[in-house]
Amino acid sequence: MTLPQHVRLVEVGPRDGLQNEKQPISVEDKVRLVDDLSAAGLAYIEVGSFVSPKWVPQMAGSAEVFTRIQRRPGVTYAALTPNMKGFEAALAAGVREVAVFAAASERFSQKNINCSIADSLARFVPLLDAAKARGVRVRGYISCVLGCPYEGEVPAAQVAAVARELYAMGCYEISLGDTIGTGTAGATRQLFEVVGRDIPRDRLAGHFHDTYGQALANVYAGLLEGISVFDSSVAGLGGCPYAKGATGNVATEDVLYLLQGLGIETGIDLDRLVAAGQRICNVLDKPNGSRVARARLSRG
Amino acid sequence: MTLPQHVRLVEVGPRDGLQNEKQPISVEDKVRLVDDLSAAGLAYIEVGSFVSPKWVPQMAGSAEVFTRIQRRPGVTYAALTPNMKGFEAALAAGVREVAVFAAASERFSQKNINCSIADSLARFVPLLDAAKARGVRVRGYISCVLGCPYEGEVPAAQVAAVARELYAMGCYEISLGDTIGTGTAGATRQLFEVVGRDIPRDRLAGHFHDTYGQALANVYAGLLEGISVFDSSVAGLGGCPYAKGATGNVATEDVLYLLQGLGIETGIDLDRLVAAGQRICNVLDKPNGSRVARARLSRG
Repeated sequence: MTLPQHVRLVEVGPRDGLQNEKQPISVEDKVRLVDDLSAAGLAYIEVGSFVSPKWVPQMAGSAEVFTRIQRRPGVTYAALTPNMKGFEAALAAGVREVAVFAAASERFSQKNINCSIADSLARFVPLLDAAKARGVRVRGYISCVLGCPYEGEVPAAQVAAVARELYAMGCYEISLGDTIGTGTAGATRQLFEVVGRDIPRDRLAGHFHDTYGQALANVYAGLLEGISVFDSSVAGLGGCPYAKGATGNVATEDVLYLLQGLGIETGIDLDRLVAAGQRICNVLDKPNGSRVARARLSRG
Repeated sequence: MTLPQHVRLVEVGPRDGLQNEKQPISVEDKVRLVDDLSAAGLAYIEVGSFVSPKWVPQMAGSAEVFTRIQRRPGVTYAALTPNMKGFEAALAAGVREVAVFAAASERFSQKNINCSIADSLARFVPLLDAAKARGVRVRGYISCVLGCPYEGEVPAAQVAAVARELYAMGCYEISLGDTIGTGTAGATRQLFEVVGRDIPRDRLAGHFHDTYGQALANVYAGLLEGISVFDSSVAGLGGCPYAKGATGNVATEDVLYLLQGLGIETGIDLDRLVAAGQRICNVLDKPNGSRVARARLSRG
């Protein structure tokens, strides 16, 4: 068993986390969160999303956030751009790395983005071409990789097929998302094993939600499969719209604590990260979703 | 990697869980919890503790609980008995399996049970002898195996030394407890590797607290080391007295969900288990500490 020596954490709290919060959050608070995170050592932060505010009102101020954050050298500030319009808007706001997302489940694709998987992939081709022409890197997300709220089980081969397409059209990294958090360690390992037959493992990332409490075990399972990039959300920000009351993304603090225990380097300062998470929780007036943060803060 | 095909879960909710709850719980509610758990398929339940009610008021009714539970064939109903007086009281109440506990950390032993590790072990000798003479099986707990609130890191060799002594004096199984929940997957594997040099792995159990959110990853790490017995607490009952606001034992539901995902048999019905946990949470008027339970119940 050889674990990766270095892991990159992709912080999705400002985007995947906040977009699922109900109350409005000011541009100031978003900027402060992003700056706190980069100051804590996060080298990759998904700052916002360029989508219609009709669909995701919480992301309305993304362009302004991008213009106001303090850009630290070596940090990637990324945006989710589901289509060409979003892509152009992102670039106008100074974004230099974007992400697109597809689903591994046909029914989820239909319900969530209103088109088939094939259609959603076809729409990304011009975006990927434009990105390539302009030197913008594109990350690909796949949702429902370990289960779908409508279809139940999702075969790993089906995930692999979508991953191959995204990779072939130019996504430099494919993040496999357990959107509803039903996956367990065994399925996680099998998934990376199957998808890893077509795509180098250093081009795959794991994105786990903790709805069933399995996220950290799944991260460990991913590490054992040689995966070295994981998405996480500070303070476990975000919920899962498909299971009310359930928790959202795995907390960055908890993943970092695991990695530190394994002697894996990330460049992130846990104390500063905990402070950043607690600060946004205070703004949102909600309990901190990171157990590490709760334990450390209660310890006083 | 060969995972165990069958895992035994030792349900510690009625004892380790409830003893850390603040409000009084009636004998009726405790009996109902134990009966619900055995009905759900738990084959090993730690029902109570025979200690001075001065020290652990919550366990005052343990003898009465033992006389009133519905004993199902094939189910072990165990009690914690820290000394001969407790052992005799337990046997008088019909208990046929007991547990003793020692610490892996000298300062924790002094602070928690008011004597050195060596003294605590010496006190168990007559108890183990009496148990052997009367055909009563004794399980040994070791606390602070992956960290001590007073000493910090605890070397695995120190845990192994205590484990060897308990095993030599007749404990048929040694449960290694991460009392403060600071352990991570790497340390867990190393611990079982070191302790497993002296004691067969099928005589070792893992007991993880979820204070830092690591418990389920640690269970998975234990499985990978060939450990097939884990302690857990329905609904994650119990807190950690050393980190206020922090969570306690890993939730039985969450462990069971992991095991089911890995295709490992336990004989436990998840639906009935979730119902049992939610029932005692309603009695206690506290949120359910199992993420699996919360996800399933919110799904409605």
